[in-house]
Amino acid sequence: MDCIFCKIIAGEIPSFKLYEDDNFIAILDRFPASPGHALIIPKRHAVDLFELTPAEAAAILPLAQKLGGKIKSILGADGLKIMQNNGSAAGQDVMHYHLHLIPCSASDGLEMPFKPTDPGLDALAEIAKRLQ
Amino acid sequence: MDCIFCKIIAGEIPSFKLYEDDNFIAILDRFPASPGHALIIPKRHAVDLFELTPAEAAAILPLAQKLGGKIKSILGADGLKIMQNNGSAAGQDVMHYHLHLIPCSASDGLEMPFKPTDPGLDALAEIAKRLQ
Repeated sequence: MDCIFCKIIAGEIPSFKLYEDDNFIAILDRFPASPGHALIIPKRHAVDLFELTPAEAAAILPLAQKLGGKIKSILGADGLKIMQNNGSAAGQDVMHYHLHLIPCSASDGLEMPFKPTDPGLDALAEIAKRLQ
Repeated sequence: MDCIFCKIIAGEIPSFKLYEDDNFIAILDRFPASPGHALIIPKRHAVDLFELTPAEAAAILPLAQKLGGKIKSILGADGLKIMQNNGSAAGQDVMHYHLHLIPCSASDGLEMPFKPTDPGLDALAEIAKRLQ
């Protein structure tokens, strides 16, 4: 399979590895949003959140707690942004699940990636009714 | 405690609730980045990822799989962006943990919140050495 993360996991492409266990690796993002920007990646090829087993999904945030805390503390970051994109419409670039851990500083301008909107209560109620 | 999410959980402030179990609620974001933008919130007041118990952290992504899949399918979204901010430097607005589920369409411009950088391999190696 022509998947860059599978090749990294197989050791066929070099990476800066921060962590490894039986089921996951963590590496530095090659094109980081900020210094220390890391990725948690399941070794099994799963395209997105919806292809993870529930057990895989359950393991990821406890790992993010440990690794993210370490990154934040070692680099002296003020905050940590967690991001994970499903589908190219959401900005997913590599089609193998990866969770972004992005250390943030008060001055780096990474705090607000989206523009909040105010659709009003009626529009919210309408959407909620469809989703409840 | 003057926490808007604690008040929502206690029923003191109205919300558009999508889901509830013993430990979590999911509601619509009041100021959504896109229609259907939802939040998964632990009922227990924990400020951020680092204050969650490992068991709480483990429960969140399996719930995001279910709820995010439902949102995506009902609204016909092309993708789903997962985001969670720790610290005001990372854009955290309410100081009670919440995971954003943001449905994305190919045309809504939500795909790329950050500018990738290329610090070069030496700089990456230096950071990796500190984090390994």
